[in-house]
Amino acid sequence: MSTYKLYYFSGRGRAEVSRLIFAAAGQKYEDIRYERDQWPSHKSEMPLGQMPVLEVDGTKLPQSLSIARFLAKQFQLAGKDNLEQAKVDAVVDTTSDLVSKYMPVHFEQDPKKKEELILKFLTEELPKHLQNLETLGKLYGNGGPFFVGNHLTWADLFFYEMGGNMLQVDANCLDNLPWLKKNRTEVEKQPKIAEYLKNRPQTQF
Amino acid sequence: MSTYKLYYFSGRGRAEVSRLIFAAAGQKYEDIRYERDQWPSHKSEMPLGQMPVLEVDGTKLPQSLSIARFLAKQFQLAGKDNLEQAKVDAVVDTTSDLVSKYMPVHFEQDPKKKEELILKFLTEELPKHLQNLETLGKLYGNGGPFFVGNHLTWADLFFYEMGGNMLQVDANCLDNLPWLKKNRTEVEKQPKIAEYLKNRPQTQF
Ligand SMILES: N[C@@H](CCC(=O)N[C@@H](CS)C(=O)NCC(=O)O)C(=O)O
Ligand SMILES: N[C@@H](CCC(=O)N[C@@H](CS)C(=O)NCC(=O)O)C(=O)O
Repeated sequence: MSTYKLYYFSGRGRAEVSRLIFAAAGQKYEDIRYERDQWPSHKSEMPLGQMPVLEVDGTKLPQSLSIARFLAKQFQLAGKDNLEQAKVDAVVDTTSDLVSKYMPVHFEQDPKKKEELILKFLTEELPKHLQNLETLGKLYGNGGPFFVGNHLTWADLFFYEMGGNMLQVDANCLDNLPWLKKNRTEVEKQPKIAEYLKNRPQTQF
Repeated sequence: MSTYKLYYFSGRGRAEVSRLIFAAAGQKYEDIRYERDQWPSHKSEMPLGQMPVLEVDGTKLPQSLSIARFLAKQFQLAGKDNLEQAKVDAVVDTTSDLVSKYMPVHFEQDPKKKEELILKFLTEELPKHLQNLETLGKLYGNGGPFFVGNHLTWADLFFYEMGGNMLQVDANCLDNLPWLKKNRTEVEKQPKIAEYLKNRPQTQF
């Protein structure tokens, strides 16, 4: 039996998808959260000086999505053959494309520029990328509510988390995307996920 | 036996890592390249209106890295267990982090802004990300020249291609990174890769 330690800051951020995978799998792990003022003394312990990092049986792994994909494979949440896993990965990458469009908006400091960027994001990028995800759900979902192959995978969990962040930015962004809405509802209904969501630390990001 | 069609523009770009995987595996495929003026009439044939797309036994897959990872798994170039695959993925994601820092530099139109961005990229981002990759090579390479587990994986092929692009931007960028230099040399020496590199279409990107 492997043992797992997940290192991250005290927020959801780039680590939450892995925490959701642990929760869905009912797998024990150490959820190590460093406060900002503790970070300088731990930075050099991480392979690339960043987090999240997963420590598994003594090996340290960086990169949030590589960590999540690894955990999903360990716990049968990655898709059941190469082609299913590729579809799952494509959903994840399409979700990442959306997140990477949001990052510069989120971090912009100049209020006037930020307003312009938000407007462009809300009218162009957000609808386009969400529509892409709705398309993939219908294409690979076999008529069911999960992204791939009629069962829960980490693609559903990643979109659940990132879609939640997008709903904080625009509460109506899923109004015309019934497939995505249904997908999120189904994820929330999974007993272990429901339990986890009820008890997880409340943080802004 | 599966049949494969790869759709992309007539360049290396986001498709070349998959072409290198096909080459390393000695696997036949259809390399379909659309010219820019043909694209509007094909855009709607792609799941997300973008390329690359892989068609495998009738299924269309978008997302360049999902495609490449799928092909690498099909041809035993993805790492031989979950942990090796996770290390391979981490190298790929770290290479992607570098590429995503270069994109805004590459696409900036204003000459003055572009100059500023290039300077920042060359003095900060490029050395930092290459150093990260050198670190991962030493950490996971078992003392050998390949990124993971003493054998060729698509992490080596992806870094080969993207490292080549970075050398076009700064011919000296690998001068103090002996591990990465040796890694590229070893990739070029693989007989099937050497053969492919000699014969591939010469394009700017
Ligand atoms: N591509 C990496 C990015 C990791 C990253 O940006 N980590 C940030 C927190 S979200 C960090 O560690 N920042 C602290 C630092 O760089 O010192 C991933 O997805 O894991
Ligand atoms: N995240 C996607 C991005 C795909 C992408 O940006 N494709 C571009 C070419 S590199 C494209 O198809 N552009 C034409 C268009 O959008 O009409 C991937 O990695 O495959």
